[in-house]
Amino acid sequence: MTNITIGLVGLGKMGHAIAHRLIKHNYSVSAYDPNTHAQEEAQKLGVTCANSLQELAIKTHVIWLMVPAGDPVDKIINELLPNLNSDHIIIDGGNSNFHNSIRRYDMLAQKNIAFLDCGTSGGLAGKQHGFSLMIGGDKKAFSKVKNIFAAIAAPSGFEYMGPAGAGHYVKMIHNGIEYAILQSYAEGFDLLKNGRYKNLDLEKISKTWLNGSVIRSWILELAHNIFKHDQKLDTISGEIGENLTGQWTLEEAQEQKIPVDLIKRSLEIRAESRQTGGNYGTKVVAMLRNQFGGHEVKTKE
Amino acid sequence: MTNITIGLVGLGKMGHAIAHRLIKHNYSVSAYDPNTHAQEEAQKLGVTCANSLQELAIKTHVIWLMVPAGDPVDKIINELLPNLNSDHIIIDGGNSNFHNSIRRYDMLAQKNIAFLDCGTSGGLAGKQHGFSLMIGGDKKAFSKVKNIFAAIAAPSGFEYMGPAGAGHYVKMIHNGIEYAILQSYAEGFDLLKNGRYKNLDLEKISKTWLNGSVIRSWILELAHNIFKHDQKLDTISGEIGENLTGQWTLEEAQEQKIPVDLIKRSLEIRAESRQTGGNYGTKVVAMLRNQFGGHEVKTKE
Repeated sequence: MTNITIGLVGLGKMGHAIAHRLIKHNYSVSAYDPNTHAQEEAQKLGVTCANSLQELAIKTHVIWLMVPAGDPVDKIINELLPNLNSDHIIIDGGNSNFHNSIRRYDMLAQKNIAFLDCGTSGGLAGKQHGFSLMIGGDKKAFSKVKNIFAAIAAPSGFEYMGPAGAGHYVKMIHNGIEYAILQSYAEGFDLLKNGRYKNLDLEKISKTWLNGSVIRSWILELAHNIFKHDQKLDTISGEIGENLTGQWTLEEAQEQKIPVDLIKRSLEIRAESRQTGGNYGTKVVAMLRNQFGGHEVKTKE
Repeated sequence: MTNITIGLVGLGKMGHAIAHRLIKHNYSVSAYDPNTHAQEEAQKLGVTCANSLQELAIKTHVIWLMVPAGDPVDKIINELLPNLNSDHIIIDGGNSNFHNSIRRYDMLAQKNIAFLDCGTSGGLAGKQHGFSLMIGGDKKAFSKVKNIFAAIAAPSGFEYMGPAGAGHYVKMIHNGIEYAILQSYAEGFDLLKNGRYKNLDLEKISKTWLNGSVIRSWILELAHNIFKHDQKLDTISGEIGENLTGQWTLEEAQEQKIPVDLIKRSLEIRAESRQTGGNYGTKVVAMLRNQFGGHEVKTKE
C-alpha cells in the first residue's frame, strides 16, 4: 500500500479511468465531482469522495485535475487555492491549451505551488492498458510524483517533455497528427467501399492489413472492430465532432510558419461534415473517434 | 518437405525475402534472375537457380513474379508463355497497376492459364515477420496455392479480395493511405522539432506515443528507430521518391469521384520536395521510406 492519497477532480470517463489505474496500483484516491452517479461509480472502485474542493485540498497534496479544458480548470484552481501550500503538486491531466498551462504554472509558482501539465492519450482503452502521458512543468515536482505517472501510464508510456506547457504542447500536436491519420484511413476506406470493385470486404481488408502491412496501427485495429459489425454505416451520421486541439495545432503551426497541410485539410473536412452531413469517409472518422474516445456518434433517423 | 517447387522470377530485395519465407516453410524454390550476385545470395538460402525463364516454366507450375511493375511483367509473361499450360498458376506479387493485372488475367485465361494478382506489403521487415498479402483473380487457383500464401504471409496476413485486379487494387489504396499517414506524422514531427519549444526530444516523444497513445503504429516504431540515431537529419536530403501507386490511387479516386484530399496533397508535397529539396518533414518521410522499404535516401554534400 502506497501511503499517499491522490486527490482527483473530475470523475467523467477519463477521470474514472485514472482512478481505476491508481487504485489498481495501490494508491488511495479521494475524489471530487458534484455528479452523484459518477461518485457512486467511483466508490465501487474504492474511491473516497470528498464533499468539496476545500476538503480535497486539505486532505491531499497531489491533486490531479481531469476536467474539460478552459474555464473549468481556472475555476477549480481558484477554489483550491486558499488551501494550497508549497507541499502541493497540481497536475492538469486534461486537454488544456498549453498557453493556459504556462499561465497557470506562473501564477502558482508565484505562490510556491508546483504545477505539472500532462497530456493524456489512449482513450477509454487506457483504463486497462495504461495511458501515454506527456508531462511538462516543474521538473522537481515531476521527480517526486514519477511513480504516480508510472501507475497511470502504459509501460514506458510517460516522459518529462520540458518546461511549463510542454506536456500539453506535445499532446496538442499528437492530436493534430491523429486528425490527419484518421482522415488518411477514411479516404482509403471510402475508395474501397464506393469505388470500382463493388464487393470488397473491409473486415477482411483491415484484418489483412493488421497482419504484416506497413500501415498497421492501433487506429486500424479499431477500424477492424467497426467493420466486423457494420461496413455500410447506413445509420451513422457523417458529422465529425472535435475538441479544440486540432485547431490549436493549426494556429500554432501558422504562427511558427511550419506547413501542416494535411492537418489543416482534416480540420476543414470536419467542419464541412457538420455543414453537409459528410460522406462515407467522415462516417468512418466519427466511428473511430467513438471507438477510442467514446465520442458521441449521431445516428440518422 | 512440401513436394512442390515454386518458380520465382526476380531476386531483388523483395524477391529474396519471398524466397527466404518459402524455404523457411520447407518449399523448394527455383529462381530466375540474370543478376549473378542476387543468384549467389539466393543460393545461400538454398534456392536453385534456373538458367532461363523457359527452364523455370518447364520445371515449376506455380510461378511467383517479383519484378518492377510495368513492361518487365509483360516481357517475362511473354517469355514464359510458350512453355505454360493449364497446370500453371502465375502470381504477380509486385506493385502492378490493377488495370494491367486485369488485362494479363484475361490474356492468360484465354489460354486456360490461371493468374493471381497479389499486393505485397510489409517492406523488408516482412522477410522475418511475414507479409500482408492482398490477392485477386482466379479463385480456384487461390484455393490451390493457399498454403504458399500462408508461408509468405504473417499469421492471418492474407486474404482473397475479389476478381482479377482486386489484389493490386487494394494494395494500391493501401499505398495511398500510407502516403498520407507518413505525411501526417511528418507534419507533427516538423512542428515539434522546429516550433516554439526548442529542446523537445523526438526520441522520448515517439517512445511515449508508442506506449499507450491513440497514434501508436508500426510507422511510429520506425520513426522512433530513426530518432534514436538522429533527430537533426542535417545530412539527409528532403527529396521524397515514390513509386506510381500513390498517383494511381489519386487517378482512380478522381475517376470514381471519391474525395482523397490528403492523399492528393501528400503526392503534391512529394513532387514539390523533388523541386525544392523539401523541409524537415519531408526528410522524415524519406527516412521512413528508407526504413521500411530500403528506398534510397539522398544525402547532402
